Parts: sequence; structure tokens; C-alpha cells
Amino acid sequence: MNGIFITFEGPDGAGKTTQLRMLADDLKKLGHDVLVTREPGGTAISDLIRSIILDPAHKEMVDQAEVLLYAASRAQHVHQLILPALKAGRIVLCDRFIDASVAYQAYGLGIEVDIVKEISRYASSGLEATRTYILDVPVEVSMARLQGRASASGTNAQQLDRIEQKHVDYHSRVRAGFHQIAADHPERVRVVNANRSEMEIATEIWEDCNRLLEEHISV
Amino acid sequence: MNGIFITFEGPDGAGKTTQLRMLADDLKKLGHDVLVTREPGGTAISDLIRSIILDPAHKEMVDQAEVLLYAASRAQHVHQLILPALKAGRIVLCDRFIDASVAYQAYGLGIEVDIVKEISRYASSGLEATRTYILDVPVEVSMARLQGRASASGTNAQQLDRIEQKHVDYHSRVRAGFHQIAADHPERVRVVNANRSEMEIATEIWEDCNRLLEEHISV
Repeated sequence: MNGIFITFEGPDGAGKTTQLRMLADDLKKLGHDVLVTREPGGTAISDLIRSIILDPAHKEMVDQAEVLLYAASRAQHVHQLILPALKAGRIVLCDRFIDASVAYQAYGLGIEVDIVKEISRYASSGLEATRTYILDVPVEVSMARLQGRASASGTNAQQLDRIEQKHVDYHSRVRAGFHQIAADHPERVRVVNANRSEMEIATEIWEDCNRLLEEHISV
Repeated sequence: MNGIFITFEGPDGAGKTTQLRMLADDLKKLGHDVLVTREPGGTAISDLIRSIILDPAHKEMVDQAEVLLYAASRAQHVHQLILPALKAGRIVLCDRFIDASVAYQAYGLGIEVDIVKEISRYASSGLEATRTYILDVPVEVSMARLQGRASASGTNAQQLDRIEQKHVDYHSRVRAGFHQIAADHPERVRVVNANRSEMEIATEIWEDCNRLLEEHISV
């Protein structure tokens, strides 16, 4: 495993996708071979599973099915795409990974943390990120940004996806869950204050990522 | 839980679906309230998952994804359909259940038996069948019946579904797996010789099922 695996976590509306693309562009400018991908999704089979998970019509979906579908999508994604890229020495940037399952499903839905971790470990054959950036914003800020996105595109709250509709208490538990994950994994995880300008956030991530690359090369 | 949960297991081509319908008809004639269902499937979400699992185009699907998709489909099926029916006192007849995952995925694909059982237990919240009939035929017989079905419908071997295409060694391991399951659960499981006429098989199942109903009522 010669590549570097970097994951971005945090709520929708925290700016994960923007930051991930900025980092990818900067790394490519330095000549690195970068793969950008996301969960749930990343392969044809994973995308089909993603569409089942996120369909707003599936209100009857039970927690166990949601946990197992995320894990199934991850299993295909890890083995078909991420592991081969890491073996080829590429830098893989992934929008959400196991921490999202732990934060949303274990801490958010109240499913036993150990079960979610164990199923995730089975799905990913034990793969862990080299570095994880948790983009942290107060719940009101991420919710407001999502509402803004929805009105800008002419949709309304009813058309937010099934996960986004869940209410504020849930998102508060998810945020606390991300903080717990950071506390449990201080070497891997960096919590980034995302209630700032895009450039300020990007600069902090870029400086940390450069140190990570230097360490990796010197090993 | 006042209902009775009966599962049918065995290879495709053993006659499970026929026997399940014959038993359902006989039970209904006696005035029982019967629900007939199947795995993978049984609910709208489970049927979508089933279509991903069985699509012959998905040759790249990794074992972990297959295990987790079956479990996700089962989670939805158990909680949305089977448990409410059992709570209402109905007799539920299900075409395949957890034993199929253990036989096909653990014994057939070589995935660790304990992992498959643990994920299945999580998916089904620990639900077990009251009685399981394993319809047992030599591998050559079930394969020949499937080939016969395929040619009768004007299709050929290439159009058998993804699972059916796996070769004979695999199906031999699956059959041995079903025998192991029967040995592990002598009170729950009955192995039925399905290399006989439909009426002979149905009579054996009917007699056993009647004893089961009498025991259940006398409890």
C-alpha cells in the first residue's frame, strides 16, 4: 500500500466537496496522481445502492437496512476502486467514509457503535484513512446553507433528500459524534473550523496535507 | 410472537416454490391465515436490492457487497413484512432465509461462517424460523432442471442469472453446507428428499407441518 488515503467528513453544507476539489487541484498542480471519489457511490454498483438509500420515497426503510446498504456500497467501492488506486501509489481523496457511518448511523440514529464499526470493518477489509478532515460548523449554519441551496435551485424543504429532512436534534447528535471520533483518533483526524471563508479553510488543509506528504515520502 | 415461521431452502431447481405454494394452499383450505413471501425480495426496497444482486451484468460484484446486500434486503423484509405478520398470528411461508446466506455465501463462496451468521442476526434482529424444510437433490439433478427451464423458455445458459452461472463445484459446496446446517439444527430443520414426485414430497412436508401446528396449538 504505497498511496495516501484522505477522507473528508462533516455535515452536508459544510463545504466538503468544494474543499476536496480545491485540494485535488493543488495536488495535481504538484504532479501528484489523484483519484477523487465519494461515498455512498464511486462505482456503478455503489451508485445503484446510493440511489436506493437516498430516494425520498423510501420512508419505510429500517435502520438495519440503511446500515447494511451503506456498508454494501462501501465494500464495492473499496475493493473495486480505492484499494487498486492505493496499490498503484495514487493519492485518493474520498468525500465521506467509515466515520460518516459511525456519526450518522451510530451517534445519529442510536445504533450500537460497535456493530456499525464491525460491519464497516468487514465491508472495507479493515482499510483506514491516512488522514481525515472533519469540516465542522454549527448545526444552524449547515442547515441554513442547505436551505439556501434548495431555494436557489427552486426546490423546497420537501425536496431535500431523505437524510437531509431529518431534524435538527439528529444533526446535533451527528456533530457530537464527529467530535467523539476526533477525540478517539487524534493522530488520524483533524477537525477544521469550516465556519470561515473557503480560502482560510483551504489554506489550513493545504498546510496540514503538505506536512503529511513530507512524512509519507520520508518514510 | 404468536405466528409460525416456516422457511424453504435448497438449490434452484429443487422445487421449493412449487412445494411452498402447495403447502400454502393446503393451510388456507384449513382456514389458516397464510403469508407467502421470498428472499431476496418481499418488499419494494428489498426487490430493488434483489435486482442489483441478481443482475448478470454485475460480474464485478465483490463477495462482501453480495453478503451485505442480501442482509440489507433481509433487514427490510423481516421488519416491514415478516415480524408484523407473525405478531398478527399469521403463518409465514418464506422461500429462502438465513440458511441460504450461510449455505451460498459462507459454505459456497468460502466467507467466514461466523461473519455471515452475525450479519444475518443483526439484519433480522435475531428472528429464527420455527421450521425449515431443506429440499435436497443431487447437484446434477438441480442443474439439469435449471437447464431444462432455460431451454423451455427459449433462453440459454448465458441467460441464467448471475448466481446460477456459478459452476458445479460451488453448488456441491452449497449442498454440503445445507447438510451441515441440518446437522447443527436438528430440532428446527428437516431435510426432504426432493428427487421424488411432487406429491410424495408434498405429503412428507404436510405430515410434518401438521404435527408442528398441533404442537404449536397445544403450547
